[in-house]
Amino acid sequence: MSGFTEGTFSNFEGFETKAWGAMSPTSPLTPMTIKRRTPAPTDVHIKTLFASACHSDIHSVRSEWGKGVFPMVPGHEIGGVVEAVGSSVTKFKVGDTVGVGCMVDSCRSCRNCRKGLEQYCLPPGPVMTYNSPSKYPHTPGFEEKRTQYGGYSKDIVVHEGFVCSIPTNIDLAAATPLLCAGITVWSPMKHYGLKAGDKFAVAGLGGLGSMAVKLAKAMGAHVTVISRGKSKMSDALDNLKADAFLDSTDADACKDAADSFDFLLDCVGANHDVSQYLGLTAVDGKCVLVGLPPDSMSVHAFQIVPKRKSLCGSMIGGIKETQEMLNFCGEHNIVCDIEMADWENINECYTRMIASDVKYRFVFDAQKM
Amino acid sequence: MSGFTEGTFSNFEGFETKAWGAMSPTSPLTPMTIKRRTPAPTDVHIKTLFASACHSDIHSVRSEWGKGVFPMVPGHEIGGVVEAVGSSVTKFKVGDTVGVGCMVDSCRSCRNCRKGLEQYCLPPGPVMTYNSPSKYPHTPGFEEKRTQYGGYSKDIVVHEGFVCSIPTNIDLAAATPLLCAGITVWSPMKHYGLKAGDKFAVAGLGGLGSMAVKLAKAMGAHVTVISRGKSKMSDALDNLKADAFLDSTDADACKDAADSFDFLLDCVGANHDVSQYLGLTAVDGKCVLVGLPPDSMSVHAFQIVPKRKSLCGSMIGGIKETQEMLNFCGEHNIVCDIEMADWENINECYTRMIASDVKYRFVFDAQKM
Repeated sequence: MSGFTEGTFSNFEGFETKAWGAMSPTSPLTPMTIKRRTPAPTDVHIKTLFASACHSDIHSVRSEWGKGVFPMVPGHEIGGVVEAVGSSVTKFKVGDTVGVGCMVDSCRSCRNCRKGLEQYCLPPGPVMTYNSPSKYPHTPGFEEKRTQYGGYSKDIVVHEGFVCSIPTNIDLAAATPLLCAGITVWSPMKHYGLKAGDKFAVAGLGGLGSMAVKLAKAMGAHVTVISRGKSKMSDALDNLKADAFLDSTDADACKDAADSFDFLLDCVGANHDVSQYLGLTAVDGKCVLVGLPPDSMSVHAFQIVPKRKSLCGSMIGGIKETQEMLNFCGEHNIVCDIEMADWENINECYTRMIASDVKYRFVFDAQKM
Repeated sequence: MSGFTEGTFSNFEGFETKAWGAMSPTSPLTPMTIKRRTPAPTDVHIKTLFASACHSDIHSVRSEWGKGVFPMVPGHEIGGVVEAVGSSVTKFKVGDTVGVGCMVDSCRSCRNCRKGLEQYCLPPGPVMTYNSPSKYPHTPGFEEKRTQYGGYSKDIVVHEGFVCSIPTNIDLAAATPLLCAGITVWSPMKHYGLKAGDKFAVAGLGGLGSMAVKLAKAMGAHVTVISRGKSKMSDALDNLKADAFLDSTDADACKDAADSFDFLLDCVGANHDVSQYLGLTAVDGKCVLVGLPPDSMSVHAFQIVPKRKSLCGSMIGGIKETQEMLNFCGEHNIVCDIEMADWENINECYTRMIASDVKYRFVFDAQKM
């Protein structure tokens, strides 16, 4: 425990709680004490039971996606139980099992917010769960541009509109990654119209990819996992129950699979050849990116025009669809494959995540910090 | 008249007719005599009244899109009158005003053909109107892989399934370009769901772009023409009746228009920065390519993922939707702005087309050759 972190405090009414965070982009994560606001009438105070680590936590805490605000407490896959509710809260009561994902606020009034697509809230956009300043007068901390702290913490206080119910029949630790990995693949599947019977492929078998396999299977699609080499083949077929596996380095197999997938979900976050995936996409098919490779991609009009293909994007998902996804997971008994880890090992976990050495999410017990 | 062209003849039952075509990728177009088949029971013999010139005619006849078969008679925007029908023809009778577009046959049985999307007929794919061999046993000339001749000809014989009716209330010469320029922009508008009230933009004001303005206006969209510089502004606004004009070289205007178009139709066939158009596309918006720039394009995931944008393709259109488009044009009195030209000037017309010096299609009187 590194003790009291002055920089994390400011002059607002609140309470102290424990957290794990970083003091700079080059510092390891360490324990720290942070301050949470006293719940406003519309706030839910959640006792965090589980927090899982997403690759974007690493990008954020290392300032790889822009300059971060430090100290930074990552964590946007949060499962817990309601500890207290503000006087106006109607959606939740003490003891409810709940989750918080990537966002904790938005303007709540733009055309996208009104459609339940808070992730596309028009500028200045949504308030992310951490490393994001309060942006709206309705948000506590607006005047001081107070920065949010994320889910690597024993407590979190969130407006009820950004809290979801987690079905109690599924394991909460394993359900926690649904709040980002689950919704990030669910949202494009629904938006771009994945249907039962469709030939669906997922490229990149990490946390997102594993959830895509499970959700697409439950939707009735024929699911192929695309991966470089064959190291993930048995896990894809035997554990995740994919219908087929395609080694993207096998030229003959790729030739046979040309123009065959109605929907290819590209979860690869590293630089890669999206053209290859477009080649595997069927006439009228969609290749949907949810990862953010750092460099530009090369696409030729001859790949998309003559067979009416689309290269599409999608980012996380709105609160309404997150709740729909959680309900679906409850009905179909779907959770993420996880590995429980101790906070003391979180920096090592990050190293293993970068090496894709986790099946498929590290989850931490938030009450054990 | 260059006289009898031996190479264009083969041993099948048919009749001679006049045409304009090229003997090699580097030859100018010259008059020639070609042979058409005697109409089969399902064929329609059309007396060509008008043929218009599309930029892809130039690409094809110069072998810029792959090695062509010569002699080549271009022309895939064909308007005429039925001269005779085969004994089994049910759709047409002598004297009907009809048109033929980019295709004259397909497998007629694959999943795309069954949906009326013959342009996406699975390999070996559709038989194009010219420079395309007969591919199916049901097609006359299959055994000898006979190559089609296009619409720069006084007569053409086509299976009735690839002939469309042209409403008689619109001028046939000016309706002729609808068979390619019209359907190429209509098909993506319908397929990708352009709606009344949508903010629609068209980039590239040539034959396709001009038709896109007229069709999108008639569909009730708010139409902006995007063009480099302001040279086309008055024509876009005053003549074509676009609602707005955006000079893509005006950085301030482009900044104001960022993320604003629900549907951006990119008709630019030359190399260009598609990223700029993606930047102008709205959240959930579609940037749809119908041109075929020769080089690869650079696209960044950050342009499409965070605002759920799509880069889509579309190629010409099926026969069913071509007929729907022609009917729509009849109802709304829509034709192409054209410039009538003489066959003797066709090579000069090609030069002017490359310089974008035509508003917006050259049309030739096929009976005057």
